[in-house]
Amino acid sequence: MNTTIAEQVAKLGRRTVDFFSAEELQRKWEAAEKEGRPLRIKYGADPSAPDIHLGHVVGLNKLREFQECGHTVVFIIGDFTGMIGDPSGRSQTRKPLTREQVQANALSYQEQVFRILRRDRTEIRFNASWLSPLGFEDVIRLSAHVTVAQLLARDDFSKRYAANQPISLVEFLYPLVQAYDSVVIKADVELGGTDQLFNLLLGRELQKLMGQEPQVVITLPLLEGLDGVNKMSKSLGNYIGVNEAPKDIFGKSMSIGDDLMWRYFGLVLNWPEERVAELRGRMERGEAHPRDVKDQLGQALVARFHDEQSARHASEEFRRVFTSGEIPDDIAECRIEAGQLGPDGTIGVVALMVLAGLSASNGEARRLIQQGAVRIHDNKITDPQARIAPVNGMIVKSGKRGFAKLCVG
Amino acid sequence: MNTTIAEQVAKLGRRTVDFFSAEELQRKWEAAEKEGRPLRIKYGADPSAPDIHLGHVVGLNKLREFQECGHTVVFIIGDFTGMIGDPSGRSQTRKPLTREQVQANALSYQEQVFRILRRDRTEIRFNASWLSPLGFEDVIRLSAHVTVAQLLARDDFSKRYAANQPISLVEFLYPLVQAYDSVVIKADVELGGTDQLFNLLLGRELQKLMGQEPQVVITLPLLEGLDGVNKMSKSLGNYIGVNEAPKDIFGKSMSIGDDLMWRYFGLVLNWPEERVAELRGRMERGEAHPRDVKDQLGQALVARFHDEQSARHASEEFRRVFTSGEIPDDIAECRIEAGQLGPDGTIGVVALMVLAGLSASNGEARRLIQQGAVRIHDNKITDPQARIAPVNGMIVKSGKRGFAKLCVG
Repeated sequence: MNTTIAEQVAKLGRRTVDFFSAEELQRKWEAAEKEGRPLRIKYGADPSAPDIHLGHVVGLNKLREFQECGHTVVFIIGDFTGMIGDPSGRSQTRKPLTREQVQANALSYQEQVFRILRRDRTEIRFNASWLSPLGFEDVIRLSAHVTVAQLLARDDFSKRYAANQPISLVEFLYPLVQAYDSVVIKADVELGGTDQLFNLLLGRELQKLMGQEPQVVITLPLLEGLDGVNKMSKSLGNYIGVNEAPKDIFGKSMSIGDDLMWRYFGLVLNWPEERVAELRGRMERGEAHPRDVKDQLGQALVARFHDEQSARHASEEFRRVFTSGEIPDDIAECRIEAGQLGPDGTIGVVALMVLAGLSASNGEARRLIQQGAVRIHDNKITDPQARIAPVNGMIVKSGKRGFAKLCVG
Repeated sequence: MNTTIAEQVAKLGRRTVDFFSAEELQRKWEAAEKEGRPLRIKYGADPSAPDIHLGHVVGLNKLREFQECGHTVVFIIGDFTGMIGDPSGRSQTRKPLTREQVQANALSYQEQVFRILRRDRTEIRFNASWLSPLGFEDVIRLSAHVTVAQLLARDDFSKRYAANQPISLVEFLYPLVQAYDSVVIKADVELGGTDQLFNLLLGRELQKLMGQEPQVVITLPLLEGLDGVNKMSKSLGNYIGVNEAPKDIFGKSMSIGDDLMWRYFGLVLNWPEERVAELRGRMERGEAHPRDVKDQLGQALVARFHDEQSARHASEEFRRVFTSGEIPDDIAECRIEAGQLGPDGTIGVVALMVLAGLSASNGEARRLIQQGAVRIHDNKITDPQARIAPVNGMIVKSGKRGFAKLCVG
């Protein structure tokens, strides 16, 4: 029996970054089994960004593995902090949400996460339900458990402090909120990206200080987005959402760099390492063409979030539009620097047309767009006010002969 | 009219350390006068130490000056933080108080402060009344106004952080509490010791951020205690309380160092500088004996907090007991080092007897005490468990012939 748990723990440890600790997980698991109860695996979601993308899938895959071992996932929607936002107004990504937005986002979340998680082994919880009733006195008692030095040791805080960038006192309270969630839901394990390590450990610490058995902490690699450099995120526009249309999932997959795609096979599709290594070997020996390998990735991703048929169809469509001669093989590249993007990672289509050399002036670009002559990534653009998040390999088409291929960063 | 206000402002500025700013005070005053309202002068009191001593009198004197100009003193008793204490348990002086203790202390405060302040121009407020109802969300909104760097710039925080001494997150919340008090009571001016400068300025800052006119900030010198080195404080035992018996006020005054007594004439008795300088000159030229000058100080202090008759009586008594031959002129000194005192600045009477060479063993000391043979500072000690806060010049007497004079630090 214990051997089986030990084996399962070892399997769950694959493709993780931090694991505090496998021994502890095994001990907890054995104890829980004796009590006849599943372990509670905590996962926190930011309620401001309801688009689940492949970056999240890395974590959701691991949660699903826990569920397959019989455990319960406690999916926490951070509506308390979501509705407050960053009242200092310093952070663009921390705008306060209304109760309605939070609820709409929560529904949208559930629709998406259950493409990966099992409904029957998932609890959805909203943290405002236990955080809103707390008074100032409770906050003070909680704060007593944390020192300033401990918080300043967090990587991003220490960098900002050293660079004289302001850190609002609120930001010191938020990790505490997240840690307290672990206490309330009595988490046995908490999972997150490597950038969450500090917060997860603080949860562990707080549980100890408040007389609970501390949670096991597991972090997972951050998946690079389509740009191949930054962490996949909605705000950078370098993401593939699990709710996107087959055409878009496939098309965006084709823009993933040759070196990066192996991470997608492993972290998103959960292929065993050996299978990834074998395919990679075949490509490197010239036995498989990179374009075909990427086609396989794209189809597998569509199949994962839609179905096999949609996957085949998306592949055929892509081939027809982009490789059947409609688009020349070597079209001009248009390089877009980060500085040319807005704070949300987008660029206006008019500016893009001029930048790509597809029109001589903003006025001309506006006319071409209004005439319906412009397609970006095979979508017709007719609103000159539209903004798009450029992605490597995206094709901008103007009329019959104007082509440019975007190259970001 | 304006000239008069300007003159009064200049007078109020005497014997202050920081003043942000005299111009602002004058402007506020003129505006308030037009509205026919007095200014609101905030003063915060720590509810854990209800013994008002001469160190507090420095501030209370200045508040009284404001009252004589027609303004209202808002005396805030910090019962909210008092009842929470320091939940991290790091600070000895921040033990949580019960509601009953806070109320008893508050009564005791009022009895004492009205020896200096006018009742008719004083509001007593308890900050729990507005702080307890605040929720977590309110705390977060408040915290948004402060940065970590701003708090770490506070002198004592920066020193502790540099020395790797832990600072609890609670301690970052407390200055905010105090600052918020200024917002709630709409303070026009806040007064405090120089060690409060940061907190007072934070109140000013928070008022600005919350759309109020910022308070004028005034700090006053910290009065050195009887040891001549440390700030007068209850926990160091180097204080003279305004509620003490005439005999004690007088006796303790006689132990003040010759150099220090001028500060007491100025800051506590509010003598004009010229008068202090004149007396000092006379003493330095040998026209006045230091002992007589100190007798004058002691009598003036007793007269201030009791009456003239008690003052004369205390002086005569002191002379009788300590200088009329009952006690030898040159008795042995007993030096007490800080390390021999408990964290509260006291020493057990048994240990003191042994240390002073007045008994050979703890057992003998205990017996002498139980027999009623021991007097400290002219008080009979009969409880061997008693502890006292030693003060320079204090006389320990055992039987008819045993004498020792304490010398602290």
